[in-house]
Amino acid sequence: MSDITRSQDFTREEVGLALRNHGMHLEGLRYPVTPIGMHYLLIHFDIPFVDPTTYELPVEGSVRSPLRLTLDEIKARPAVTAQVMMECSGNGRASLHPRAISAPWQDEAVGCAEWTGTPLGPILEEAGMLDEAVEIVFTGHDRGVDDGVEHYYERSLSVEEALREEMLLAYGMNGQPLPPQHGAPLRLIVPDWYGMASVKWLKRIIVLNEPFDGIQQTAKYQYKSSKEDPGTPITHKTPHALMIPPGVPDYLSRTRHLKPGRVSIQGRAWSGRSPIERVEFSSDGGLTWEDASLGEQAGRYGWAGWSCEWEAREPGEYELCVRATDAAGNTQPLAPEESWNYGGYQNNTVQRVCVIVE
Amino acid sequence: MSDITRSQDFTREEVGLALRNHGMHLEGLRYPVTPIGMHYLLIHFDIPFVDPTTYELPVEGSVRSPLRLTLDEIKARPAVTAQVMMECSGNGRASLHPRAISAPWQDEAVGCAEWTGTPLGPILEEAGMLDEAVEIVFTGHDRGVDDGVEHYYERSLSVEEALREEMLLAYGMNGQPLPPQHGAPLRLIVPDWYGMASVKWLKRIIVLNEPFDGIQQTAKYQYKSSKEDPGTPITHKTPHALMIPPGVPDYLSRTRHLKPGRVSIQGRAWSGRSPIERVEFSSDGGLTWEDASLGEQAGRYGWAGWSCEWEAREPGEYELCVRATDAAGNTQPLAPEESWNYGGYQNNTVQRVCVIVE
Repeated sequence: MSDITRSQDFTREEVGLALRNHGMHLEGLRYPVTPIGMHYLLIHFDIPFVDPTTYELPVEGSVRSPLRLTLDEIKARPAVTAQVMMECSGNGRASLHPRAISAPWQDEAVGCAEWTGTPLGPILEEAGMLDEAVEIVFTGHDRGVDDGVEHYYERSLSVEEALREEMLLAYGMNGQPLPPQHGAPLRLIVPDWYGMASVKWLKRIIVLNEPFDGIQQTAKYQYKSSKEDPGTPITHKTPHALMIPPGVPDYLSRTRHLKPGRVSIQGRAWSGRSPIERVEFSSDGGLTWEDASLGEQAGRYGWAGWSCEWEAREPGEYELCVRATDAAGNTQPLAPEESWNYGGYQNNTVQRVCVIVE
Repeated sequence: MSDITRSQDFTREEVGLALRNHGMHLEGLRYPVTPIGMHYLLIHFDIPFVDPTTYELPVEGSVRSPLRLTLDEIKARPAVTAQVMMECSGNGRASLHPRAISAPWQDEAVGCAEWTGTPLGPILEEAGMLDEAVEIVFTGHDRGVDDGVEHYYERSLSVEEALREEMLLAYGMNGQPLPPQHGAPLRLIVPDWYGMASVKWLKRIIVLNEPFDGIQQTAKYQYKSSKEDPGTPITHKTPHALMIPPGVPDYLSRTRHLKPGRVSIQGRAWSGRSPIERVEFSSDGGLTWEDASLGEQAGRYGWAGWSCEWEAREPGEYELCVRATDAAGNTQPLAPEESWNYGGYQNNTVQRVCVIVE
């Protein structure tokens, strides 16, 4: 786990991570499917180059019939295309105080792409997992050092999770071959979890007969109350709505400027476990709320559009907020203190947009 | 002009700009043509949505025959495809001290795309510029506030510059329609200047009979020794080489780790006015240099690949540097102090990569 800081300023290392790990411009919420190049990226190490013409994916470990699949063999299997909203589990970290030193996301670690691939389950069934199988480890070709440990990025799923029909081995994004920065030639898609589970640049799949204890599984991506707390693993996305900031921005502060009058506000909302049932909008910093109009979710794992009208009658400064609630009754906290945790994960505090009506 | 700071730390506003304005991952130097989604972006305000089906580009002002061109009409004109290396004039700003508060680029505000479009000159000739014409203003659809002034982003070129055959109105990038974040549906490409000249989301072209004095022309993008200095305009790219950092990175510090042995180092180099003639590599922080092998430049405005072998014999810490010199004898400074200027523009100080051989 990285250090935390009480500073309101940011380190050179955090800025370096922000420059590499692209955010989605929030005006990109206009697009139901995020254009390539606007979708967020979180890349721990370097983007590896993996030659698709010689690519092979081993599926091995506690299986009866180990496999080595070429990209052509994977593409020859039944194909599925699905919209999946993806969010980094560190999204919103920069608003927490004290702050974990890692990717300093504000609100923009989001995107919804249309992924094409083949379901994972039938491949695991073909390899024939032994009864002893407990977890499946997905290893990426991306390698580096974190907390002094050199390793390939790798994450595991339980056998039960891995066999769910929506788990994809994806080779296409928005109708195009997977771009290098999104995991070419093949990546995992775990639709309802935060992004860290969707391992990019797949190098191998190993079936284990014991729980996986890699650093990215047991040390990172833990919801912890302190450095000493062993924590609980980060898994599913939580309810979250974002708006397209209205008006025009100031270059540096991103404060929004607009003229008095009726303003159409729109955005998108999502969750991991349960569909979004309600989106509310506030123009007074969260003191009062009104229901927004909520559209259909794009498939089971896409996001849902929402909209409302705001009467910006009087000149002045406003703080606009939006809040999503899912069908299980989970909603977003108003204050970052309520989301605070040691690693700065799973912060779904409501978005706040400063607007000057002039 | 934004404020400058003596702090080594970065503000929340700078981090916000870093998250929006994507850098090219330096391992992307492997690609002669930067994949979409890895090319750098500098977007002052919001990415506007411009409907290509109703798009019209007015060409007006001091002309005999004002034009209004649809996208289909522009695409029906003679097409040119060219590789153009683009760099933000603020690249390297984060290394200067004191530092201008703006996009806090380290080394990554670069990319080389293959742009497809139609030459600008014949369109201006068709409109018939009057003898009084002095400058051509290119206005984008992107609008916002900077230094308290609300404006569309706009920049001008002299008549002579605008008529150069390599100026393109581009609607394609890497064989695809221009993506929203790169200026869809139509942008200007000014191949040898820094990126600020290549106006995105073109809204109109106006021929002026006097010099243009818009904020992005006369207040921003000036090379100034102090706040009071009126400055000289930033124009052409200067010589610059970057390497792919070898080995594997530490997640946070990006320090590189590798094993002793022979290491192939490669990268790319470019300039604005004159071709790159020499690239040198140093493994001791710039005390001693050896010539790298320099490949062909990709067309007149692309970048050139270079490579060298480094014998990393002994464990220890190394500072790798690379330096380009162009045919006119211009080279890169070793120390950021030599590149210092008030706005943090045109900083082509040599890249420094920290490597631990272990």
